[in-house]
Amino acid sequence: MAQTLKKPRPGIKDVADRLDVSIMTVSRALRGVEGVSQNTRKRVLQVAEELGYKPNYNARSLAGARSRLIGVSIPTLFDEVFAEILTVARTALERSGFDLIIETSSYDLESESVWVDRVLKWAPAGLIVTGVDHSPAAVERLRDADIPIVEIWDYTNTPIDVCVGLDHEEAGRLAAQHLLDAGYRNACLVGILEDRDPRAEKRFASFARHFGAAGGVAVHRVDMQPSFEAGQAAVLKMEPAVRDGFDCFFFLNDHLAFGGLCALQALGVSVPDDVGVMGFNDLCINAVLPRPITTIATERDAMGNLAANRMLSRINGARTPAATQVPVKIKLGATTVKARGG
Amino acid sequence: MAQTLKKPRPGIKDVADRLDVSIMTVSRALRGVEGVSQNTRKRVLQVAEELGYKPNYNARSLAGARSRLIGVSIPTLFDEVFAEILTVARTALERSGFDLIIETSSYDLESESVWVDRVLKWAPAGLIVTGVDHSPAAVERLRDADIPIVEIWDYTNTPIDVCVGLDHEEAGRLAAQHLLDAGYRNACLVGILEDRDPRAEKRFASFARHFGAAGGVAVHRVDMQPSFEAGQAAVLKMEPAVRDGFDCFFFLNDHLAFGGLCALQALGVSVPDDVGVMGFNDLCINAVLPRPITTIATERDAMGNLAANRMLSRINGARTPAATQVPVKIKLGATTVKARGG
Repeated sequence: MAQTLKKPRPGIKDVADRLDVSIMTVSRALRGVEGVSQNTRKRVLQVAEELGYKPNYNARSLAGARSRLIGVSIPTLFDEVFAEILTVARTALERSGFDLIIETSSYDLESESVWVDRVLKWAPAGLIVTGVDHSPAAVERLRDADIPIVEIWDYTNTPIDVCVGLDHEEAGRLAAQHLLDAGYRNACLVGILEDRDPRAEKRFASFARHFGAAGGVAVHRVDMQPSFEAGQAAVLKMEPAVRDGFDCFFFLNDHLAFGGLCALQALGVSVPDDVGVMGFNDLCINAVLPRPITTIATERDAMGNLAANRMLSRINGARTPAATQVPVKIKLGATTVKARGG
Repeated sequence: MAQTLKKPRPGIKDVADRLDVSIMTVSRALRGVEGVSQNTRKRVLQVAEELGYKPNYNARSLAGARSRLIGVSIPTLFDEVFAEILTVARTALERSGFDLIIETSSYDLESESVWVDRVLKWAPAGLIVTGVDHSPAAVERLRDADIPIVEIWDYTNTPIDVCVGLDHEEAGRLAAQHLLDAGYRNACLVGILEDRDPRAEKRFASFARHFGAAGGVAVHRVDMQPSFEAGQAAVLKMEPAVRDGFDCFFFLNDHLAFGGLCALQALGVSVPDDVGVMGFNDLCINAVLPRPITTIATERDAMGNLAANRMLSRINGARTPAATQVPVKIKLGATTVKARGG
């Protein structure tokens, strides 16, 4: 097991330089994730062996120095979305003998970064982190950790290791298209503070791009955790603008949308005839409402299963896709389609 | 540090026998929790020293063999009650350098018991468990673990170690009294399966005792996680009985109550005039409803803070009350008081 200290130890860059390929390609080939041809993979493995380069992760894993802990960072426990993803993922991971150590970042990248430092001291077998936006310091440490990292809920072609998520820009586009088709032209997006939820910002930016071509778009932000009350507070605060301005709302999620609907009802505004309301996620409250919210359904169970799957594959050294997209689709409710004629 | 093996090693029972007091008294005296006179405590410590009895926990703690992990078992992540308690408790515990390893038992005592076994292998600094009802095997292992155990959410005079919770019998009594005072006489309690949630069963039993003296009480159970949909399903399933039977409902929590209210609205039943509805917990949806649910408010933030406090006191060897009760009180909404006259 002991190895003579030789300096400098060959690094991933040496392998990439020798083959004139990117570090990402070498990393993917060594990790066994997809996106690299069989031929390139073979050459990378060959050169890595020639140079004596071995990723830390495999070495550690073989030596059994990694624990059976998997760290998970989610923004909040007050959101059934993450509760659902986590519940499904955990069932699968615990079945394989792993315990989860869970962090909530309160939508704060600095908080997440501090946690990454702390959790790595437990020598976790892998980490699941929310989103693909992290502080530069966190990204560096996650890369250096040389353990499986699964980014969930958002999507990128260039994950730190692997990702399983949805296309929030597509979600924003779908919402804009639906509201335009329903005849609305003056939209208000309701979210939390701008630097908190990068996924919501992607939806909003995409919404504005697509809706803006045919109508007006404004954004209203509340300095609260995403909640029923945040949606209510937003609408009540905008009362004058609601009375003779906006004709539709796209809320951060269905809980804000429900709070907003309660406020609109209190103001005597008729939904969907005077004002249209869209939510996001198709949360469980929607299943009992006499007039359900038009929303965008997201497949949290599928995401939780895929996340656990990818993690186990990576831990076991099996090949796995680097990036997987889970679909989004409009779920029509009773809050966006105006009564015809009259 | 090493100790010669001598058999039998003196146990807590030897100390109790010598002093002719209960094991509980010796345990409390040694743990530094309240409920033991200064005089008894002094005698216990003296005899324990004479006999050479030392609880494992102290020995381990001094030797630094305990980790900085604290295990937490809650029934579900899909409940803002536990999310709130946990969020508050974690903030305090993390500030003191502890990480939390969280389990959800899905309201299954067997599941909790399996987890207790597993989590003890991490040599946690302490455990927080939900409720005061556990499988006999789990109780035995929790006692034997000789680490601080904080039972939350429910209350007993004889906790395994310490507890911070509320009096669910008092909550049931308050609900029964309120509905009787409002003039209702034929109550239906709506909950999940009988063996799942011992706290709800205590509320229901107490409700039945107090309401039953003046009216009729039935229980309806749904085979689902507590949720909006569970409440809706319950009411829809009981449609005939609702039409000419029950005049009030006491739901497991406000989410079931809201689902039930949506179903009653769909059935054309007038609330509160024809049927009264009570929930439990004063969940955040209640803050936005145009007609809030009459409910029983529970102080989750206070409970989370107290739980963290007790845990840190116990870890640091400070004296702390063995059992602490957090108050419950009726929060009047618009779903229980009938219109007068007419």
